[in-house]
Amino acid sequence: MTDTKGLKDTIACETRISAIEDDRLSYAGYDISELMDNRARFEEVIYLLWNLHLPTEIELNYFEKELRKNYAISDAVEQCILIQSRKHLHPMSVLRSTVSLLGVYNVNAEESSVEATYEQSIQLMAKIPTIIATFMRLRQGLSPVEPREDLGFAANFLYMLNGKEPTELEVLAMNRALVLHADHELNASTFAARVCASTLSDIYSCVTAAIGTLKGPLHGGANERVFDMLQDIRDHGDTVTYLQEKLASNEKIMGFGHRVYQTQDPREKYLREMARELTRGTEDNLWYELSKEVETYMKETKGLIPNVDFYSATVYHVLGIDSSIFTLIFAMSRVSGWIAHVQEQRKNNKLIRPRSMYIGLRDLTYIPIERR
Amino acid sequence: MTDTKGLKDTIACETRISAIEDDRLSYAGYDISELMDNRARFEEVIYLLWNLHLPTEIELNYFEKELRKNYAISDAVEQCILIQSRKHLHPMSVLRSTVSLLGVYNVNAEESSVEATYEQSIQLMAKIPTIIATFMRLRQGLSPVEPREDLGFAANFLYMLNGKEPTELEVLAMNRALVLHADHELNASTFAARVCASTLSDIYSCVTAAIGTLKGPLHGGANERVFDMLQDIRDHGDTVTYLQEKLASNEKIMGFGHRVYQTQDPREKYLREMARELTRGTEDNLWYELSKEVETYMKETKGLIPNVDFYSATVYHVLGIDSSIFTLIFAMSRVSGWIAHVQEQRKNNKLIRPRSMYIGLRDLTYIPIERR
Ligand SMILES: CC(C)(COP(=O)(O)OP(=O)(O)OC[C@H]1O[C@@H](n2cnc3c(N)ncnc32)[C@H](O)[C@@H]1OP(=O)(O)O)[C@@H](O)C(=O)NCCC(=O)NCCS
Ligand SMILES: CC(C)(COP(=O)(O)OP(=O)(O)OC[C@H]1O[C@@H](n2cnc3c(N)ncnc32)[C@H](O)[C@@H]1OP(=O)(O)O)[C@@H](O)C(=O)NCCC(=O)NCCS
Repeated sequence: MTDTKGLKDTIACETRISAIEDDRLSYAGYDISELMDNRARFEEVIYLLWNLHLPTEIELNYFEKELRKNYAISDAVEQCILIQSRKHLHPMSVLRSTVSLLGVYNVNAEESSVEATYEQSIQLMAKIPTIIATFMRLRQGLSPVEPREDLGFAANFLYMLNGKEPTELEVLAMNRALVLHADHELNASTFAARVCASTLSDIYSCVTAAIGTLKGPLHGGANERVFDMLQDIRDHGDTVTYLQEKLASNEKIMGFGHRVYQTQDPREKYLREMARELTRGTEDNLWYELSKEVETYMKETKGLIPNVDFYSATVYHVLGIDSSIFTLIFAMSRVSGWIAHVQEQRKNNKLIRPRSMYIGLRDLTYIPIERR
Repeated sequence: MTDTKGLKDTIACETRISAIEDDRLSYAGYDISELMDNRARFEEVIYLLWNLHLPTEIELNYFEKELRKNYAISDAVEQCILIQSRKHLHPMSVLRSTVSLLGVYNVNAEESSVEATYEQSIQLMAKIPTIIATFMRLRQGLSPVEPREDLGFAANFLYMLNGKEPTELEVLAMNRALVLHADHELNASTFAARVCASTLSDIYSCVTAAIGTLKGPLHGGANERVFDMLQDIRDHGDTVTYLQEKLASNEKIMGFGHRVYQTQDPREKYLREMARELTRGTEDNLWYELSKEVETYMKETKGLIPNVDFYSATVYHVLGIDSSIFTLIFAMSRVSGWIAHVQEQRKNNKLIRPRSMYIGLRDLTYIPIERR
């Protein structure tokens, strides 16, 4: 038996979906720089993760049509989001419950044939953005905006959220953010999805487990806290003393550090560039400048590198997304990877069931309660 | 890096909660035979798992009072169960969604102080039986039975489910089944709960992830299938040819085999004894006799041992529990262990984030879609 706390460097399974090697990230053999430089759209990347090859034009057209047909959510689901849209509720809890309910409402949820899994996957992929946008608008007291089947994934989401068609630059930025978050090998939420899949549970259970896991501040929950921190720093007025105080009280700085990357998070530079580009010459440039200051300080004093969550905060903010739902945007993209991993786990399944090391007392004798 | 498929024999964490050693199971140092022979009640065992010592009389009284005060569910939760109680829905999906909604409705769900965690834990523990009984009665077209604070955990559950006070023998059997299922080291659902907890996500996310994981037929989902199989065997008429056919078509026989146990599942003999005792002289004895036949055949031909799910099927049936909710009974007990593990994970947390081994293609060049 081997003992590796947090399963650091322990291989839990084989995969063809994505790889992190030498601080580079690739999806099914394509380095993410290939996908970024060639402006691959998110739909292509979903297809890639699920099929392990890029789609032809015909394949992509068909796939997109299937996705778009499924954008709309039922009245029952909208009703359930409405009930949950009271302000103080955690948006990730609402997404967790709503996705769980999608599974309850799908009469084919227990089917696990290739066809049924594909249908469930498309449904989850297509409806999560609508759930998020509907939730956000209801919570703001606005009426939900119906999805538009003539718009792609990124554009349709921004349209439903903000009630107006996004600019080309905004769609480009949203697409990039979605592509960069789509998969990341065995991160904690994907691993949770695979553990769940390994008992041969249904896909809604797997995605629900993953959403709950992504919610934590050490994982997807970091990005919303990054923006809160930037706001705090602005109010505080001095970046360095702000960070010194935090670090002195042993607080972690959200958006920094990574289990796997050593020298850089390869996704971060694209998000940094987007943050710079999107904020250039606007008052939002402040967030970019503050972020640079934090980055410099953290690198110099702690040797910690910004991760995917750091500059995405500024990017999302500029796209009109409220920081309270940043982690939902992460989920909306990562669900593509979760689904790919669930499908892969099923293909060659083995129950994921590790051991623990017992360090407690042994061989105790039960004493009747009157004599304790 | 080590490669161990399904993380077999890989230690993922330390624990003081339970141990499986030499095919024996112990909770916080007490062999389950100690707890069985001394007829420990389930409430004592929950307390033991959460506090790592047996309660004194005063501690237990207080703990039980807290649990009983929390039996009742709100109208909103009952309403949500009602909507979900249509017949074709999977009961475990309903439990998954309802527990997720408990988290949405608890305004303190995001608190993680010791006090808040305790309150959330008591709430989950106390309300899950009520959720299950309410669901089952609504689905049968009956009105839900209000919990009774003068009854203990096991008795109250059977009372709410069947609408009449259970006999002493029934309460004893229910208690035993609950105690035997309470914890089991790093089984897949508990592991899923710990992975989720390791991102510092909230307890409702962890328990929701665990429920979804338990649902799978390779894990908790096995017990309901055991009873279906016994019914099939009765209808088929010949146990041996029935099993031969199944095994010939490479089907797994539910309720047999275990990742960790080699010679016996130490929980099984208590369930077997209970099944015999409860069915003696009644027409339900048929299920016990058929089970013995299956056990003998599986041991002799495949060397496979019955696990906790095998005889529990007959026990639950005799207690008036419909096989469609057997896995929920498992969840109702195991949630005590899940919560203990979440609390332990938080105390000395490290993100659980293993690696995968990439076996796909590498260094592919992006070809524009028109040229694919
Ligand atoms: C991502 C993360 C969980 C990886 O953690 P890990 O591999 O388990 O490593 P640890 O948390 O044990 O960190 C190792 C050391 O670096 C320090 N460290 C890591 N990230 C830090 C951060 N963001 N701020 C301050 N210190 C940090 C730890 O305190 C620890 O120091 P120590 O050895 O003196 O105790 C961790 O870096 C973190 O919590 N980051 C902040 C949350 C975040 O941005 N998450 C999103 C990830 S995409
Ligand atoms: C519990 C279980 C998942 C443990 O599995 P594991 O450690 O991953 O072991 P495997 O599933 O790889 O099984 C090992 C071998 O025994 C066989 N086997 C295990 N359980 C079997 C069963 N219930 N019926 C028939 N064959 C079984 C497997 O087919 C395999 O044979 P092979 O080596 O010829 O392929 C497995 O025994 C099982 O699926 N049992 C049925 C479901 C069940 O009762 N689950 C409840 C557990 S408490």
